Amino acid sequence: MTMLKGNAVVGQSGGPTAAINATLAGVIKGALAAKGEGIIDTLFGMRNGIEGFLQENLINLTDIFSDERKLEILKQTPSAALGSCRKKMKSPEADPETYEKLIEIFKKYNIRYFFYIGGNDSMDTVSKLSQFASEHDYEMRVVGVPKTIDNDLAATDHTPGFGSAAKFVATTMKELIRDISVYSMKAVTIVEVMGRDAGWLTASAALPVISGGKAPDLIYLPERSFDPEKFIESINELQKDHPALLVAVSEGIRFADGRYVGEGLGGRKVDAFGHVALSGAGKVLEDLVKERVGCKVRSIELNLPQRCAAHIASLTDITESVGVGFAAVKYATEGKTGVMATIDRADGEEYSVSYGAYNIAEIANAVKTVPDEYINETSDGITEAGINYLKPLIMGECPVVYENGMPEHIVL
Amino acid sequence: MTMLKGNAVVGQSGGPTAAINATLAGVIKGALAAKGEGIIDTLFGMRNGIEGFLQENLINLTDIFSDERKLEILKQTPSAALGSCRKKMKSPEADPETYEKLIEIFKKYNIRYFFYIGGNDSMDTVSKLSQFASEHDYEMRVVGVPKTIDNDLAATDHTPGFGSAAKFVATTMKELIRDISVYSMKAVTIVEVMGRDAGWLTASAALPVISGGKAPDLIYLPERSFDPEKFIESINELQKDHPALLVAVSEGIRFADGRYVGEGLGGRKVDAFGHVALSGAGKVLEDLVKERVGCKVRSIELNLPQRCAAHIASLTDITESVGVGFAAVKYATEGKTGVMATIDRADGEEYSVSYGAYNIAEIANAVKTVPDEYINETSDGITEAGINYLKPLIMGECPVVYENGMPEHIVL
Repeated sequence: MTMLKGNAVVGQSGGPTAAINATLAGVIKGALAAKGEGIIDTLFGMRNGIEGFLQENLINLTDIFSDERKLEILKQTPSAALGSCRKKMKSPEADPETYEKLIEIFKKYNIRYFFYIGGNDSMDTVSKLSQFASEHDYEMRVVGVPKTIDNDLAATDHTPGFGSAAKFVATTMKELIRDISVYSMKAVTIVEVMGRDAGWLTASAALPVISGGKAPDLIYLPERSFDPEKFIESINELQKDHPALLVAVSEGIRFADGRYVGEGLGGRKVDAFGHVALSGAGKVLEDLVKERVGCKVRSIELNLPQRCAAHIASLTDITESVGVGFAAVKYATEGKTGVMATIDRADGEEYSVSYGAYNIAEIANAVKTVPDEYINETSDGITEAGINYLKPLIMGECPVVYENGMPEHIVL
Repeated sequence: MTMLKGNAVVGQSGGPTAAINATLAGVIKGALAAKGEGIIDTLFGMRNGIEGFLQENLINLTDIFSDERKLEILKQTPSAALGSCRKKMKSPEADPETYEKLIEIFKKYNIRYFFYIGGNDSMDTVSKLSQFASEHDYEMRVVGVPKTIDNDLAATDHTPGFGSAAKFVATTMKELIRDISVYSMKAVTIVEVMGRDAGWLTASAALPVISGGKAPDLIYLPERSFDPEKFIESINELQKDHPALLVAVSEGIRFADGRYVGEGLGGRKVDAFGHVALSGAGKVLEDLVKERVGCKVRSIELNLPQRCAAHIASLTDITESVGVGFAAVKYATEGKTGVMATIDRADGEEYSVSYGAYNIAEIANAVKTVPDEYINETSDGITEAGINYLKPLIMGECPVVYENGMPEHIVL
């Protein structure tokens, strides 16, 4: 393999996470190391992903991050510092102009390395670009780095960003259990967690069991259909033992007939202007408890803080997110293209990981859901095997730098 | 003043905060110090406030917290470790049995010191008990310690628990600003903050300005009536400058006619069973933007984590919450009764506080709202004077002890 010299570009795409900038920091570290070896000269950052790249909206990251301290602040800054986009690339046959434009910009800036941090759509972009470049005799290495709080990507043991979101969910559940336990009257608190098709993040609600606490009384994942009658039975049964219950529910749970629970129970909600509104699974369960149990009930939607609460990020997640970004650069300079960098968990009792490179063309667009052995028999809780999988991913706290009472962030 | 020897009891009442256990830790420290001086022998804790006390549901805190490390964990445990209640005491004339029962239990356990941590209702209990005991020749010192995330109590510069809630709100706003800024399309994100009658907590949403960030674009407090037309005008005007807006809104904002915004705009919401439902101010503003502006819009209710996110507690708040609890014991052993311990801010540039004791009978039940000079002229933002008041209260981070990835809590 000949050494490919030139410039590099990195972009971020899809929904933000608390760790996507840590991966960017890893790519920057990798590019700075490759600069030392005379391989990569300048690392550019594209603003708003491939959309910004097509407008040559680039910044010089090699210059900006010659200051080591800035890299540390980047690691603790949530969301995508370069901005994001949701563009899904068409095939070269369907949209030849875009690809010609891309090659033109690659040549103009002598870009030989292309790194893209994102989810399934981003990996698809990596695959198409890699193939197009090789078919058009433009030597370029294209490597993807995964990120999603949903943890639903194939080929990697877990995704960068998931561990931090899981740590936020677990910590919030542990705190909520303390909060709801102060009164001696019957009450149900329902917490809706992100995850449309995969229940990984909702499953992490069970983690207080490893920290001297208890899991929510009921945990419902989208991997199982939701039975409202069984839910009410469980509430009544559990309240015989203790009055204040906590329920964790994925936004994506569905009834047996396939309809999302968030669509409601037949009655239709209308908003202040009379439009039909979807209310969310938590709200529907709240209405159900109000009607059928009659006790005090509240629903809480954890919402965006799940993906941007960098102040409580997992040190394991942030460390690995940097590591997988760094590894991506190494794979590219070693000659790999059309691959996604992965996190591979070693077998054995003690948790340890290594990084790998997986041929994206071989990754089906399949969603990796929570396996049966992680869900209990009554489909309302997480097994020990599930806890054992999740536990290492939330370990460790980052040494967050504060500025006047709030974590310091970098804005590019 | 003769030295009054005997036992003591402490209770917690009202809604939880992240600092109410820090105040409990302060009372315990004070009682342990008074034990060293031969004044207080045993400090009992009453479960579920005065309700539990009437059932003699007591635990021996002097024994439990002879272990110093447990006090540190108590300080970082959110919510009320002793449990809470919402009982409002009637007057001795209206309910003589309860007061006789209380005196009976005081005598049985030789209780000479009564500490009650809570809000307005709790201070009312302190006042009534203190008066009743003195009129019935039972020598006892009754001292209240304030707590509320709402910061709306008179006589004290600020309330224990507020600083930690404000730090959570400020940090979450700073993180959300990063999150919503990644896309280049028009969007409005509305965050609903607790505070029915006073806008202190919503005002703290402005604090990212002191930390290299910016305030939400619009901040609406219950101290000003809400004008939907002006709101829409502001959104349209601001989006000419930048596409993604953040709006902080208090749950308690009202229209000019006095109706809560959370009651809706005339159209009535019905829940899944056809019942009329209140949707919350944030949701109503979301519907309004959807209808009148038409851009992407999302509302987020910060909900219970505002009052229990102890993992991001303010060191200033926790330190003062311990201090005011300790001071309460000192005032009692010095002979004060029927008082509330307060936090007094010193004049001058540098922030410093001392503790005081305020005669509860002189505190009107008035709500302390955000003063005019802290709200900007257009009634949609916070002035520099307001920022200067709020800033010191969120300073410093607590050295949180973690256990398997989540903060360690104590359960009594």
